[in-house]
Amino acid sequence: MKIPELLAAALPQDCVTTEAWALQSYGCDRTTIWPAQAVAVVRPRHIDEVQRCVQLANEHGFALVPSGGRTGLSGGAVASNGEVVLSLERMNRIVDFDPVDASVRVEAGVVTAQLQDYARDKGLYYPVDFAAAGSSQIGGNIATNAGGIKVIRYGMTRDRVRGLSVVTGKGERLELNRGLLKNNTGYDFRHLFVGSEGTLGVICEANLALAPAPADPLVLVLGVPRFADVLEVLASFRQRFSLSAFECFSDNGLRKVCAAHQLAPPLSTPAAYYALIEVDECDGAAEQAVAAFEYCVDQGWVSDGVISQSLGQAAELWKLREYLSETLAAWTPYKNDISVAVSRLPAFLVEADALMAARYPDCEVVWYGHIGDGNLHLNILKPERWSKDDFLSRCSAVTDELGDLLVRHGGSISAEHGVGLLKRDYLHYTRSPAEIELMRGMKALFDPRGVLNPGKLIG
Amino acid sequence: MKIPELLAAALPQDCVTTEAWALQSYGCDRTTIWPAQAVAVVRPRHIDEVQRCVQLANEHGFALVPSGGRTGLSGGAVASNGEVVLSLERMNRIVDFDPVDASVRVEAGVVTAQLQDYARDKGLYYPVDFAAAGSSQIGGNIATNAGGIKVIRYGMTRDRVRGLSVVTGKGERLELNRGLLKNNTGYDFRHLFVGSEGTLGVICEANLALAPAPADPLVLVLGVPRFADVLEVLASFRQRFSLSAFECFSDNGLRKVCAAHQLAPPLSTPAAYYALIEVDECDGAAEQAVAAFEYCVDQGWVSDGVISQSLGQAAELWKLREYLSETLAAWTPYKNDISVAVSRLPAFLVEADALMAARYPDCEVVWYGHIGDGNLHLNILKPERWSKDDFLSRCSAVTDELGDLLVRHGGSISAEHGVGLLKRDYLHYTRSPAEIELMRGMKALFDPRGVLNPGKLIG
Repeated sequence: MKIPELLAAALPQDCVTTEAWALQSYGCDRTTIWPAQAVAVVRPRHIDEVQRCVQLANEHGFALVPSGGRTGLSGGAVASNGEVVLSLERMNRIVDFDPVDASVRVEAGVVTAQLQDYARDKGLYYPVDFAAAGSSQIGGNIATNAGGIKVIRYGMTRDRVRGLSVVTGKGERLELNRGLLKNNTGYDFRHLFVGSEGTLGVICEANLALAPAPADPLVLVLGVPRFADVLEVLASFRQRFSLSAFECFSDNGLRKVCAAHQLAPPLSTPAAYYALIEVDECDGAAEQAVAAFEYCVDQGWVSDGVISQSLGQAAELWKLREYLSETLAAWTPYKNDISVAVSRLPAFLVEADALMAARYPDCEVVWYGHIGDGNLHLNILKPERWSKDDFLSRCSAVTDELGDLLVRHGGSISAEHGVGLLKRDYLHYTRSPAEIELMRGMKALFDPRGVLNPGKLIG
Repeated sequence: MKIPELLAAALPQDCVTTEAWALQSYGCDRTTIWPAQAVAVVRPRHIDEVQRCVQLANEHGFALVPSGGRTGLSGGAVASNGEVVLSLERMNRIVDFDPVDASVRVEAGVVTAQLQDYARDKGLYYPVDFAAAGSSQIGGNIATNAGGIKVIRYGMTRDRVRGLSVVTGKGERLELNRGLLKNNTGYDFRHLFVGSEGTLGVICEANLALAPAPADPLVLVLGVPRFADVLEVLASFRQRFSLSAFECFSDNGLRKVCAAHQLAPPLSTPAAYYALIEVDECDGAAEQAVAAFEYCVDQGWVSDGVISQSLGQAAELWKLREYLSETLAAWTPYKNDISVAVSRLPAFLVEADALMAARYPDCEVVWYGHIGDGNLHLNILKPERWSKDDFLSRCSAVTDELGDLLVRHGGSISAEHGVGLLKRDYLHYTRSPAEIELMRGMKALFDPRGVLNPGKLIG
């Protein structure tokens, strides 16, 4: 029997499809580098069916690509090598909620925004948020340890995970940590699965910690002529506030967003960089924010600024940042998602700027970032006249130089997007040979036949 | 050559000792069950010397017990089987501090209180705190993922660790995560080493996140006649405050502490249980606390209470809780350190109480706990007339029944003390056979010759 027939024989018939549109659609993520080449798509409704798929893959030696909302940017969910896509999208129930524990148990296919809405209805908050929250799924978020715009206050997806139900590459079911706050009984495999990009097991269910509902947001956008001063602005606001967000973007990115979405620029005087700052609205917050702003102006760090006067205006200001990734997609950008310690940012940026200017004289570079976390997104836009292949190979060469620079500054070649296929050949800039060898050993332990997402992360 | 001679030949001479007092003192932790039987104590000053020790152990097939402040309660640092104790106490430098990152890099032998003081001097806060903070060392805290009295707000030691320098059982050095806030480049070994109890590698250095300095504390001690109502009190205070601590202890424990330390009881009317609550002092906090207290009295949950009027009084009230562990040591207690989800506590406690009453009719049971984390310390006091062996074997039998109860309530057999030798035979109540098998595989990966802390955790 062929693989799709094997699957169809073992699972409810409507779980398996080989229709062309499905193979195409489920075989890709948001990268556009690798063609979809899946042989089947299987969409189980229950963890038992996931387990059956993995067992079949072991018995018959075929490969599975665990699949969520496919909003990834590193090719971690691409099936371009004859794999079976294992989509978790039908496992999208919110299984349980406990107000005393302030936690939810959800299946992997729950969409991020669905969980955010659910939490809000319960008077609580699911704080992991990013541009793709309307499509990304919780299982994928956990597999890539998704970050986003609220990390500065709430941490990464990792920091929400109190428990996981997984099916390992061997086909075993593990119930990891069961939602406990305290459990010191040996190696914490839960944290091993967070960020493992579908290579060790399939995440089927998670117990997630919710946060108290936040106060209404007060949002500022400030124009900052020189990048180094962005960090001074950060320090000035940190002295007065526990920040909810501190984002930064360059003027060329802002102009593209405003043009694409018919938005007015936030400030009458443009600046080379902008800082978007969110704090909790409370008694005196606006006065404090104005005081911090005026201090930054007096110091010469900030040229102009706007502060939200309503929730509507706060949401409008956020659009300037949130629409960036989607807007730039029109230029087929090559994305670098890098991080250094916040204290290293100024020195790193001087060198990174020089590298970009020297090595991409013909390309526009748009950058933005979660500055409060030391995380920068450097987007290299493809000149229209260049072919995709040509562009990619030039960018790859520069990424090697960027890798060397990151080594010198103790940084990471992938801050929040993960490794997948896109950053696999650059992994050695952040992880040592000994670590990569141990990663291979770990892969062999959980997935000895290599059926889960082969070729991703460690190749 | 014998082992001590091998070590003395490879390391600076004053690093190795075989004096009887040292073998005795470094061979034990705070358990008193296993006799010290070390063959040597080695106290390196540098990670290179640690690495040399591990390499020698691999070459010559002897066992090492990594050793910190030896304040552990599960026998994780006991050397009772002819091992070499590898003490990190001389590696006690605070290597680096960065105010922008709000982080410190410390060697493993730094004492917890030393780091707390250092952070305070810098206007920051190291929030992991517990009774043994004056002797416990950071390396040991990380190896056991130490919890304590501030977990409800700040999390466990795990949540502080931004980077680790370790020497694996193979003798390789790994630099894990290098202090980054965001780094999604594959399996996060840092979290694997946190709580690994010295079985995978020797933690030599750590990058730790400091917290902003907290406000002055406001402390309440409330008398609660019925245990189930403690959770109502918790909910009432949580509605009004972001709590810094919520501890609970029983009246028989309090009486022992007051007697041993010549302290006055906090309330004129004793109650069966006491809740110790800490919140941030700020405008209106005392009024809010009194309102919450009065609400709890009106509901019949609380019989009496006291609220601190000064920092000195807050510290005095804390003594009632902090002296408990040390005070009970006189009774050679058998310690159960268990957890369930907070929402499961009431149902669990009804059954646990019944079990204790039925199975320990001759023993006094003193319990206290970090209720806000679902963590209970059940201390069984040894009747004077019973021998230690007799007492231990009776307690072990009851622990099996407690294990069954925990399985039914989805709890953990070791919330924060770790497994070591004491809980090794009960590990299966919290971790499945598949998980334990994977733990063995992981041990073989990092420490193939089994030279690090053999027999601990997974036996």
